[in-house]
Amino acid sequence: MSLLTVGSVAFDALETPFGKTDKIIGGAATYITLSASYFVNANNLVAVVGDDFPQAMIDDLHQHGINTEGLEIRKGEKTFFWSGKYHNDMNSRDTVEVQLNVMGDFNPIIPDSYQDCDYLMLGNTSPAVQGLVIDRLHNRPKLIVLDTMNLWIEIANADLLNLLKRVDVLVLNDEEARMLTHEYSLVKAAAKIQRMGPKTVIIKKGEHGALLFGEGKIFFAPALPLEEVFDPTGAGDTFAGGFIGYIAKTDDASFDNMKRAIIYGSAMASFCVEKFGTERVMNLTQEEIQARVSQFVALSAFGLE
Amino acid sequence: MSLLTVGSVAFDALETPFGKTDKIIGGAATYITLSASYFVNANNLVAVVGDDFPQAMIDDLHQHGINTEGLEIRKGEKTFFWSGKYHNDMNSRDTVEVQLNVMGDFNPIIPDSYQDCDYLMLGNTSPAVQGLVIDRLHNRPKLIVLDTMNLWIEIANADLLNLLKRVDVLVLNDEEARMLTHEYSLVKAAAKIQRMGPKTVIIKKGEHGALLFGEGKIFFAPALPLEEVFDPTGAGDTFAGGFIGYIAKTDDASFDNMKRAIIYGSAMASFCVEKFGTERVMNLTQEEIQARVSQFVALSAFGLE
Repeated sequence: MSLLTVGSVAFDALETPFGKTDKIIGGAATYITLSASYFVNANNLVAVVGDDFPQAMIDDLHQHGINTEGLEIRKGEKTFFWSGKYHNDMNSRDTVEVQLNVMGDFNPIIPDSYQDCDYLMLGNTSPAVQGLVIDRLHNRPKLIVLDTMNLWIEIANADLLNLLKRVDVLVLNDEEARMLTHEYSLVKAAAKIQRMGPKTVIIKKGEHGALLFGEGKIFFAPALPLEEVFDPTGAGDTFAGGFIGYIAKTDDASFDNMKRAIIYGSAMASFCVEKFGTERVMNLTQEEIQARVSQFVALSAFGLE
Repeated sequence: MSLLTVGSVAFDALETPFGKTDKIIGGAATYITLSASYFVNANNLVAVVGDDFPQAMIDDLHQHGINTEGLEIRKGEKTFFWSGKYHNDMNSRDTVEVQLNVMGDFNPIIPDSYQDCDYLMLGNTSPAVQGLVIDRLHNRPKLIVLDTMNLWIEIANADLLNLLKRVDVLVLNDEEARMLTHEYSLVKAAAKIQRMGPKTVIIKKGEHGALLFGEGKIFFAPALPLEEVFDPTGAGDTFAGGFIGYIAKTDDASFDNMKRAIIYGSAMASFCVEKFGTERVMNLTQEEIQARVSQFVALSAFGLE
């Protein structure tokens, strides 16, 4: 089945206790589509970059089967740039610099060939832009998954609340769920979000795994315990890409299949943090992914006698 | 199989955002033996209290089949008292008052009828006292499980390191594991602890579940996502009691059985936090426990197609 992903394609500069990078490719939609590329063939990207964005990076996306017809390249403008520095525990980071550049007035253009996509992943960008994407699709996709962040909960709350009525799945982290709902208990927070619109809520807890709420049920997917987290950048987007990629591949949005999709998403995220930026997610084999998923089975399976 | 538990039996006074209690029964060994009572019949307690400790509380223990022959009652002395106040998020607490009283020179006496116990649970108390218990057993139990806390890591580090060489399983929380090993990664911390002695390490992460490390394998047990945590006091001890109780009942300390034991321990802990103190753990049915364990299955089971 076909997947349409909208979000940022960007330059990132990262610093972790293990080292630092110059401008490397980053952005939510980059991680999502790369991660989803191991699951879907019709992998359609809508994003915007400046003409400073190297063709070699676009070629990398092509090599992963990502359709960049919807990647607008604005002449004379610059690509979105983010730089961040992680603290020693890798659980918190400071934004060092943000240059919105072309993302300041991102106007998502949907190529005709993208119409009738089956699954829609709205990667993190402003709720107004995410809403425009839904407006511009002639038919509603089978499933709309929304990612957001604390910034939009703060500065675009009304837009976000309107958008929530239009989506099927919301993906956010524990802090964001608490911020959005003013509930500390994640069980209460998820129930409140479900009343805001999305029938399914996925709350990411980083190294503590992820919770899936839907159909009155709860599923918990652990994160793989790792010796070392090299660079957490993009882990959440890689998770979302694995999740929606698996759903699109299997064309099954049932709760039971979403459980499997979350395990695949968690497996993909566990690779992401092993190297800087997109390096690991760019270079995976199906065998590595299957072996990692087997590790999740071993990690959480117990037979009751 | 028989279980021997050593640790504190105490008075607690608790304050949480939901209310406060006067002096109620508390103590590590109290929670451990109560929790284990749903699994084992030969449930032997070694502890010390003062003569201010009400017979009614001892009767409560008897009603749960706990053998109190090893509960020393010191005339003219007072029972260990702890009072604490939880912060709003329930994840942190302040100790308001500690009166060591009889625990200040706890000299664990092992009744003859307790000799030849199959399983030994060393509840949280000083490593010196915990070591004395092992010294005083004529035969080494099949499995020795040790609980400890940050206090002993700080003030009795050498004693604790010596003791670690003599036990099979160490149970501690994530902060304590990091403090003991100076490793942030729990995978590295567990490996380091295994080199200190215990072949099996259980790291409790509170609302984020628990990790079991042994035989080169890792198992992750989720915590049940709860709408409300009423009072976390004793949850870790209740977890340990369910764990060792299940092991003793099944007489099987294999890694695969420890996985099940951790699920039972997590189920018992999820009850503990629902009411103040020991109230909930005192009043459970086998049906409630089985239903709760089934919730853990639903929470973490996923079939790969």
